[in-house]
Formats: sequence, structure tokens, C-alpha cells
Amino acid sequence: MRLRTAWKSLVLLMLAGLAGAKNVESQTAPTLNLMPWPASVQAGNGALKIDASFGVAFAGYKEARLDRAGQRFLLQLERQTGLLISNKPADPAKATLVVHTDHASKEVQELGEDESYTLEVTPQGAKLNAANPLGALRGLQSFLQLVDVSADGFAAPAVTIKDQPRFGWRGLLIDSSRHFTPMEVLKRNLDGMEAVKMNVFHWHISDNQGFRAESKKLPKLHTLGSGGAYYTQEEIRDVISYARDRGIRVVAEFDMPGHSSSWFVGYPEIASTPGPFKIEDEWGVMDPAMDPTNEKTYKFLDTFLKEMTKLFPDHYFHIGGDEVNGKAWDANSKIQEFKKAHNYKSNDELQTYFSQRVQKLVNKYGKAAVGWDEIFVPGAPKDIVIHSWRGPKALAEAAKQGYQGILSNGYYIDLMWSAARHYAVDPLSGEAANLTPEQQKLVLGGEATMWSEYVNWENIDNRIWPRTAAIAERYWSPQAVTDVNSMYARLDLVSQRLEWVGLTHRSQARKMLQRIAGPAAPEELAALRTLADVLEPVKDYTRGETTSYTAITTTPLNHVVDAVPPESDVARRFDDKVSAFVSGSCRDANAAAQLRAQLMKWRDNDAKLQSLAQKSSLVKEVQPSSQDLNAVAVIGLNALDAIAKGTPLNDDAKAQASATIAAASKGKAQLLLIPAGTIQKLIDAATNSGACTAK
Amino acid sequence: MRLRTAWKSLVLLMLAGLAGAKNVESQTAPTLNLMPWPASVQAGNGALKIDASFGVAFAGYKEARLDRAGQRFLLQLERQTGLLISNKPADPAKATLVVHTDHASKEVQELGEDESYTLEVTPQGAKLNAANPLGALRGLQSFLQLVDVSADGFAAPAVTIKDQPRFGWRGLLIDSSRHFTPMEVLKRNLDGMEAVKMNVFHWHISDNQGFRAESKKLPKLHTLGSGGAYYTQEEIRDVISYARDRGIRVVAEFDMPGHSSSWFVGYPEIASTPGPFKIEDEWGVMDPAMDPTNEKTYKFLDTFLKEMTKLFPDHYFHIGGDEVNGKAWDANSKIQEFKKAHNYKSNDELQTYFSQRVQKLVNKYGKAAVGWDEIFVPGAPKDIVIHSWRGPKALAEAAKQGYQGILSNGYYIDLMWSAARHYAVDPLSGEAANLTPEQQKLVLGGEATMWSEYVNWENIDNRIWPRTAAIAERYWSPQAVTDVNSMYARLDLVSQRLEWVGLTHRSQARKMLQRIAGPAAPEELAALRTLADVLEPVKDYTRGETTSYTAITTTPLNHVVDAVPPESDVARRFDDKVSAFVSGSCRDANAAAQLRAQLMKWRDNDAKLQSLAQKSSLVKEVQPSSQDLNAVAVIGLNALDAIAKGTPLNDDAKAQASATIAAASKGKAQLLLIPAGTIQKLIDAATNSGACTAK
Repeated sequence: MRLRTAWKSLVLLMLAGLAGAKNVESQTAPTLNLMPWPASVQAGNGALKIDASFGVAFAGYKEARLDRAGQRFLLQLERQTGLLISNKPADPAKATLVVHTDHASKEVQELGEDESYTLEVTPQGAKLNAANPLGALRGLQSFLQLVDVSADGFAAPAVTIKDQPRFGWRGLLIDSSRHFTPMEVLKRNLDGMEAVKMNVFHWHISDNQGFRAESKKLPKLHTLGSGGAYYTQEEIRDVISYARDRGIRVVAEFDMPGHSSSWFVGYPEIASTPGPFKIEDEWGVMDPAMDPTNEKTYKFLDTFLKEMTKLFPDHYFHIGGDEVNGKAWDANSKIQEFKKAHNYKSNDELQTYFSQRVQKLVNKYGKAAVGWDEIFVPGAPKDIVIHSWRGPKALAEAAKQGYQGILSNGYYIDLMWSAARHYAVDPLSGEAANLTPEQQKLVLGGEATMWSEYVNWENIDNRIWPRTAAIAERYWSPQAVTDVNSMYARLDLVSQRLEWVGLTHRSQARKMLQRIAGPAAPEELAALRTLADVLEPVKDYTRGETTSYTAITTTPLNHVVDAVPPESDVARRFDDKVSAFVSGSCRDANAAAQLRAQLMKWRDNDAKLQSLAQKSSLVKEVQPSSQDLNAVAVIGLNALDAIAKGTPLNDDAKAQASATIAAASKGKAQLLLIPAGTIQKLIDAATNSGACTAK
Repeated sequence: MRLRTAWKSLVLLMLAGLAGAKNVESQTAPTLNLMPWPASVQAGNGALKIDASFGVAFAGYKEARLDRAGQRFLLQLERQTGLLISNKPADPAKATLVVHTDHASKEVQELGEDESYTLEVTPQGAKLNAANPLGALRGLQSFLQLVDVSADGFAAPAVTIKDQPRFGWRGLLIDSSRHFTPMEVLKRNLDGMEAVKMNVFHWHISDNQGFRAESKKLPKLHTLGSGGAYYTQEEIRDVISYARDRGIRVVAEFDMPGHSSSWFVGYPEIASTPGPFKIEDEWGVMDPAMDPTNEKTYKFLDTFLKEMTKLFPDHYFHIGGDEVNGKAWDANSKIQEFKKAHNYKSNDELQTYFSQRVQKLVNKYGKAAVGWDEIFVPGAPKDIVIHSWRGPKALAEAAKQGYQGILSNGYYIDLMWSAARHYAVDPLSGEAANLTPEQQKLVLGGEATMWSEYVNWENIDNRIWPRTAAIAERYWSPQAVTDVNSMYARLDLVSQRLEWVGLTHRSQARKMLQRIAGPAAPEELAALRTLADVLEPVKDYTRGETTSYTAITTTPLNHVVDAVPPESDVARRFDDKVSAFVSGSCRDANAAAQLRAQLMKWRDNDAKLQSLAQKSSLVKEVQPSSQDLNAVAVIGLNALDAIAKGTPLNDDAKAQASATIAAASKGKAQLLLIPAGTIQKLIDAATNSGACTAK
């Protein structure tokens, strides 16, 4: 599901939103490492010491899932402290943490179940109370986030937390079709989701590039449609059970009638055009689509849905429905005749017919359908959920007509946006903000979407995390929690913590850079890191649109663009410092010295990288960015000189500098040099009209 | 097995050896990333490009183990390049690499089997020839080491290698008793062993602190003697099969008659003193020992050995035999009577009696016994292998009497020595150098020993690697391969590569430092890294002897000493630079500037670390070292000033500086500040008698 057409207008919206958010930022450092931030936090006095005597006990309602949660909790506590903590169940009378659960949750986790909890930590002990195991799971994660090293050893600060989520649908979509996602990668990402209290794993398990679920009834789907990379039903049940243990629903998506080339490799008879078909390996929207006019198609889907709705126990079943370009339908004269006979004026109307037929089948097996915006058409059953890739407007319209919806527009993490940009998107913003309270309840939440054109086992963590933690906060925390500085401060800690959960978003990126450097001297590797630290992958769909090779499934993901995180922390911090410096009329000499030191490091880095660029073709690719970094750093230093001397840059100098910066700001090797834009701020400040040379 | 008494004399020996080695160092950079260095390497022209079309084919003798080796090889190639390489078997006529194997190796791998191979790489393709699968395994690892990124993408340089090991017994001992070693940790270390062509995994599976092997016949051994942390027989068979796939023998050690408290928890009747016994959790040599005078003991051991010699298929079976302090025997009047009756004048003679009885039982089940030095006594069976913790002298004496031996003295990696120091130890050095060629053949090789008092799942890799790769080279490569500079250059690359094999010696150390830092600002974490980069754990047995808590199995290993590697690369490189600078009469202005920059960074680091020390008790522990680093850096800068000005330091100044350095050189928080000693060299050079101020 791609945001091809709508994103540009959204960008403007977001930038406006972001600017607003920046104005209300408080400068207070976070005192508690909690993300998502709870509904209510009241700081206490002192701290609960955590040492080898730590024990957790469960009281009230008990079940095996809680026992397992307790074991995982203790293991995680041991990992993140390095303490030796007994994994034996503690006596409630003596336990450091007592978890009291009132009653069971639903056997199959449901949308809207109570996830609330209260957590009270005092120097004497901690109590976690929850209505059901879901709340207990959420509270255990909050406790784990509180524990850190202190001046007095490991401890959790005294605090009283009363917490519940704002939205009931807090999802992460992983596209296992375009690149297969190995089981251990899925599992560690489910662990990550649990850590930030997400509760829906949207498994995009079929698409043009691969059908990844074993079907016993229609086995050519996976045998011919996956290239051998698929999940057995046993593995799928394992994922579902693993997710359930973590309070996460698994919503499967089998995208239809488009995005389905891989189905047709084994079953060309349900396609609109004659075969043979192949598993696609290209980037982009494909033409093939199911034949909505052929009863064979519905018979096939009946068999298919009967099997799959049983395999996936969740009440919701995602049928996709997006991006049918209509070419396959236009090319089939029988389909044209069908349209005429039914008086359908457009392919959209034909798709509506298809959607309604499929929705009925989904209902037949006791499930409700979820689909992308395209399924929201007049006459759609009221129990469907509209999954909006188009934006809040579509969601608002649906809600006004009584339809439930979830938002993914704004949460497309494959687009390489900053955490702040995603964070500023609210499911109840824009037109949805004007809905009545009753209508607002129909906006169930949202989903971050990890489309996998350019991610594999190695860098998928790096794309999902830590940004998804900020999105998780948007879904969980009160709407007023929008302080970007606080978010980034906590995100950095959560990001560290997620590595202890088992994710590899930081460590693997380092290893990838080492591989790119090859047999490098330490100084050479350091120079590559310095450069990589200020590069970000190009945004939106630039990579797919500009790369010469479009065969996504056969392109090695071993370039610098694949290793660097979507967002540069170093560049962000530099931008914060420059912004503060110029808005303070450049009077802070200490700040000026810090900026100068950073710019000198960048200026001198290219010389240090040259020898490595001669040895490694993968480093050579980023040499233009390295030279740009040198050039913009020189410009930045000139601007600081001009500011220090009080001699404004003249128009020519400014124009020349800006031209260099503009050239350096262009994507090279699919990478953006982020500080370039920041340095323009120094140039602007160093001119006659700027504030900083007039002092 | 500890080197308590012998190490001091050995240190002197080693230092002498090292000094000798330094003199013959060549300054040539390595052109090929091979470790262990092959017996014969002939460079060719050009390189073999490695891309997605790469394929490997097996010809000649075939077996499933080779197929699996091929799959592992391709996976590893894919990991270390990031290329997408098909895992389908290639057509030999088209394969990039053709592996030809002549015939099978032994069903149970034997000591002394042919491990030779030839590997020819040309720009057109590569051929690997080996007599049997063992040689093929070794050659595949050499090929993997050759592949790296180049100016023209990934490639392997053209080369002809003819290779075979110098020693047939190239071992790594892992002590799974003092800290239990989880299965995945064992497996990734077996992968590491394969990567550097080691062929014996010595599994120290029982000791005072835990009996870790499931016994079906004597189940109280593991049920009562392990605290629940033991390997099932199925897991043991899994490890053996995993090792066999990698050309590695598994030699089990069940240490007796001492080091056996854990046995007595369930079976006090074979002990020399009355129970009850407990699983020990202390550091050091314990008193309990088996009763060598009781026939029950031998009946027990007969049952035990019958089971265990079957479980472990290797021809050699390690019976320990070390460090019986005799106190338990002295305390037992029946044993005293037995000694009198048999006219034994010492406990050593009593142990000889025990050893011979046990060796006969080992022989009864078709195996040959291996034991520590103590089992080498007059009349010992000729098929035993003496495992020497005492030193080359003992090994030479044994060889003169026709006994086989392996050396571990000098390879105790728990002592935190440098790679260079271990590298300088040769199994055929010292008195063994004077053996006849026939006697020298009895010296089978050596074993690096990972005693696990202070290692767990988290830092064991960091202790074993990369130093063990240098030891592996000592065992495999020709005796003349002793260039320390070349070793370190290649070791750094091998160390990177071992992370791709799955080891965590680098990445986990970083994570541990982050945990120690807790919620730190990036600059604070960087300051902690700068300090940690020049700290090494205290050497030899200092930690066990000086720590206030001696309960090794209940001590958390989450301190800085547990995170930093045994050897500081930064400090070593600084020492190299200082040594070159002062031996060049301090005339190199560029070198002086580099030293100055490094010293200024160190001088300023303590100030940057102070805020973190206030927040983290684990950082606070190393604050004295941080202050020392500041102090010695200031001294070093003064020395550089004196040298630059040509004004020698006077005696007072020198004495004061040396006193500060001596104080800074003392272990603090179980850590040594390594650059302190190097800075003394600058002081020495900056005095009247030094070479550098007289110019």
C-alpha cells in the first residue's frame, strides 16, 4: 500500500503541525524513562533498590501466560541490569513486586479489551494492579522501563502510575512478501512491540512478490508463489501464540484483488489476464488482478478464506483492496461485458462489487473485514474497518457514516521520515478533529507500516526502531503529550533498551558499516562513521523512483544507505544547537566553540576517508557526500568567522554558499547530507539581514 | 586448573621471549587476511570477483557433512558480503569454487587425521582440494577469510595456498562448571573455533561449582550437583554432532579426585570426608576429594565411566587429576591407615594409586586417558596424554619418557594476558626445543583454557576472542610465523569477521558499557568509552585474590572490568607510537602532534565523565582510574613540552612524575590503566639521560 499521490499535501500539513509542536516544546529533561508516556504519572520520594533479592509474585487471577510473562520479565530485568536474579516465583508476602490481576481476558484477544493498570513503586516495594492479564503485561513493561542504574546501584524511582491507552488499535505492519521476514526477526519485533505496548501485529503476508503462508487446501499458493520462502501453518500458529503471550493480536492481510501476482503463479485461472505469471521482483504497482467477474474466483476465495480465517483466530481479517490500476480488467473483453451488463461506469464500481462479495465471505466465517481506503464504498457492511493510507480526511468521512477506521497515512516508516514527523501525526487530527465524540470513537487507532522493498533480516530493525516507539506513544498516550524534546530524550533511552530486548537496530548498523569499510584502519572506520552519522536515506519514494535497478528482491542491501538509520541523531542535535545559537543572536561563545569544533571535524573528515574510498567500492559510493560534508563545513566555519568578527557576508558570498549548500542537499547514492540545511541557517544569520552580525 | 605457583617464573620467561620476538618483527603490512597463516602462500595476479552469481560445487567424495558445510559456507559468504547468493548447489562445470575431496575421514574424528588442503584462487575461479572432509572444512574457512570488499566490489585475491597444521591437537577448553555455558554460547564458540581451524573442544563439564552433564545411571550427579543448570544427554550429543560437522573433536573432562564437591552433594559416600556437601560458589582450590582407598569409589567410577565414555565418542577422555590439596585425605584416619599399609609416603603417591586405577577403567572402555600434569607419575600407562598446566619443562620430561603431551601453560586466557604474550608461547619452546624430532612428535599441541570464574554468557566471547585466534595460529602455522605486528594487523580483521560468524565479543562489550552508563548523554557515554578503551582487567589471579566477595557464582558480572576486553587496542597502538617516537629520538613532529592530541583527549576526559559518575554507581567505581588518566596525560603532555623545548625534566620532576605513574599503574576496581606505563617512556625520554631532550 503506497502513498504515491497523497504525500505531498500531507508533507505541508505535517510541517505545519511540526512547527506548531515546536512552539510548545518544554525544555524540561525527562525524569522517567517511560515510553509511551502514561496517562497519569505522579512522582514519589526515593527509589526502590533492585538487587539479587528481587522477586515478583502474581496474586489474584492466575494463568500460565502470566507465569511466562513473569519469567520473561525476570530474564529481561537480569539482562538490562546484569544482576543475578532468581527466576523462582516469589512469596507474595516477600516479593519486591506483587502483580495483582482481577480476572481473565478473552481467549482470543479482542479489540477494545481493558488494558489499564496501576503501578505503585515505593522504596519498600512495588504493586501492579490490573483488571486482566493485558493490563498486567503493560504494567510490567512500565516497571522494566523504570529500572536503571543510579548513584546507588540499580533502582526504580518511586512513582504512582495510572495508565490506559488512548486507542485500542496500536499496530505495526510488517510486509513479509517483498522481503521474507525470518521467524526470529518477527519474534524480536513482537518483543519490541510488547516493550512499547503495541497490540496489533498486521502481517502483510502476501503480495505480488511472494505468497508467504502455507495453504493446505490450495498448496500451489505457497509452493509456486513463494520461491520457497514461506511460513508453515505451524510457524504461523507459533507467531500467533508468541504474540498472544505479549498481548498482541495478529491480523493477517491477504491483499486482493490486486497485489496478487504471486497467487496467479499457481492459480492463473482466477486472474483477469491469461498467464503464465511469475513472482514479481520489481518495485511498483503491478497490473495483474483477480477476475471479479468469474465465479471461479469466489469459489476459490471461499475455500481460501475458510482455511485462513481458521488459521488466524483474530476477529478481523484484512483483505487489502488497494491500488488496483485496472489495466488487467480493461484488457479483458469478458470483464468489459460484465461491467456493461451491470451498468458499472468505472473499475472502482467493479472493485466495489468484488469487495462486497469478499466481505460476505469473510462474514460467512465469522470475521469482520479490514481493508484499505478503497473498500470504503457506498453499501459496504458496517462491521468493516477502513485502513486509511490516504489520510485523516478519508477516515473522518468514514466515521461520519458510522464506519470504524485506523490510520496509517503519516505512519509509513518506509518513507524514512523523522520520528518527530510521525509523532506529530494524530489519528484525530485534521478533519477527524471535528468529529463528534461518538464519531471519534470509531477512529480505533493506527498502524506503522514497514513495507519491505528495501529491508531484509539485517536492517529491518533499524527501519522499525526506534521511530516506532514514538508512534506507539502517539497511539497510547494522551493527545496532549506532544513535547518533541521530551520524546527524543526518552526515545534515545528506549532505543538502547530495545537492544536489550533483542532488537539489533543499533548493533547491526555498526556491523554493516564495518563490512562496508572492509579491512580498514581504525581511523578510516572512524571517518566512515563520522560521515555515516550525518547521512540519511532519501525520503518518500525517491529510491524506488530513481534507482537504476528496480528488482527489489534481488538487489543487495549492503550499501551505506541500507546501514544508516532513517534519522541522524548527530545531525538533529547539531540542528538544535545551531537553532539555539542563531535564535540567541549568536552571543553564546561556548556554543560557538562547540559548533566550530564540530564543523572542523566534518571539514577534516574527507581527507581521512580518501584512502578507504580507494579500497572499498562501497565507500567510494559515498565519496561525493564526503566531499559535500567538507564543503558545507568550510562554509559553516566561514559563517562563524563572519559572525565572530561582526562582518556580514555579502550577497555574492551568501549566494555562492547557498548554491553549494543546495548542491550538497541533493540526494547522492540515495543519501541526504542532513547538516547542509542546518548550515544554511548559519549563512542566513551571518548576513546583513541576519541577526548575528549586527551585534 | 590453575597456574597458582608457576606463573611468576613463566612471566619472566615470556617477557624474555616477547622481547626476542619484537626484535625480529617485520614492519610489512599483511596483504592477506588469513589467520592462522598457512604453511605456504603464493600470491597471484588479480582477484576473483564475488557477486550474486557465486556458486560452490563439491566433487569427488561426497557426504552430507560436506553439503551442510557448503550451506554454512554460502550463508557465511552472504552475511559477510551482504550479497544475495543462491544456496542451491552449483554445477561443477560452472561453479566459482569447486571443492574436490578424495575420500572420507574417520567416522569418529581422530587425533592426527589429515587436515591438509590446497586452495588455488585465480580471477577465473577457485579450486579447493583436500584428502578428506577435514581438509575441505579448513580450506573453506581460508576462502572465506580471503573475501572482502575491494575497489572493485567484493573479491578474493588470486593466491595459491598449500596448507596443513603444525600440531594435530589445537584446542579450546571451556569451563561450563563455574558458570554454566548456554547451548547457543557453546555453538557460536564452536563456529569461532572452526573459523580459525581449531579441532578440539575440551569440555570441562564438572568441577566443585557444578556437575553439568546428565547421568542416567547416577542421576543425583546432575539433579543435586548442578543447581538445575546441566546439559541433557541429547544436548551433549547435539554439541558433539555440531562440533563434528566443523571438524572438531569433543574431549570431555570430568575432573577427579579433587575438584569434585558437586559430585558429593548427591553421592557423599565416595568422598574422603563425611558430608553433607554443597555445590561450591567460591573462588579457589577446595578441600573435598574422592576417597581413593574405598572400593565403592571405583565401583561408582566404573558405572560412571561406562556411561560417559559411551556418551562422548572421542578416543580421549580427560580425567582431570589436578590440585588435590590432600586435606581431606589427611583428615581421614582410614585413608591414613591405607597409606601406611601400602607404604605410601605422600599424598602424591596415593593419588598415583588412584590415577592408575581410574586409567585402567578408562582403558577398559576402549579409551585413553588425558589428565593434568599430576597424572604423569612413574608407571603410568603409555597411552595417556599429559595436559600440562605447569609448563614446557614437564611436557619435555614426559616426552623423554615416551609420553604424549599437550600444553596449556601460557595459554590461560582467563589470566587476561595480551594476545602477543600468548602468541610468544610455543609448545616446542624451552626444554621441549631440545627434544629429538621423535620426542617432539609426542608434543601434540595445545589448548587455550577459558576458566569461567568471571565469565558468563555475556562476556565469555569477549574473553575468548579474538586472542584465541592468535593462539590458534600458534598451533597451526609454521613455527617461524612470529611477527607480532602482522599478527595484530590480521587479528583485528579476524576479530571483525568473527562477529559475522555470530560471536558477540565486540558488540556485547559495547552494550555492557551502555548499561553501565545508564541514561547517559551521548557525550557522557563517549567519555566512558574513552576511559574504558584504555583499561584492562587486572592480570593473573589478582581479581580472585583481592576481591572482597569470593562467591564467584553469585557475583554479578556487570562492572566495567567485566565489559572491557582483556587487551586494550587503543593503549597498544599508543604504546607503539610512543615507542617509535622515542626510539626515533623524538624528531618526528607529526608523531609528536598525534601523541599530543591523544594526551589532550585523555587529560580532558575526566571532566566529561564526572556528571555520569554522579548518576551511575558502576561508573563511580572507575572514577579513580579516570582521575589517573587525567593525571598521567598531564604528565605526558609535560614530557612532550620538555622534549619540544629541549629542556630536560630535572630529577625532582621525573621522580614526582614517576611516582604519579606508579600510583596510577596500580589496579583499581580490578582494572589497570594501561597507558600509564607508556607515559613513563615519555618521561624517561624527556630527562637528561633520555635521548630526546639532548638534540
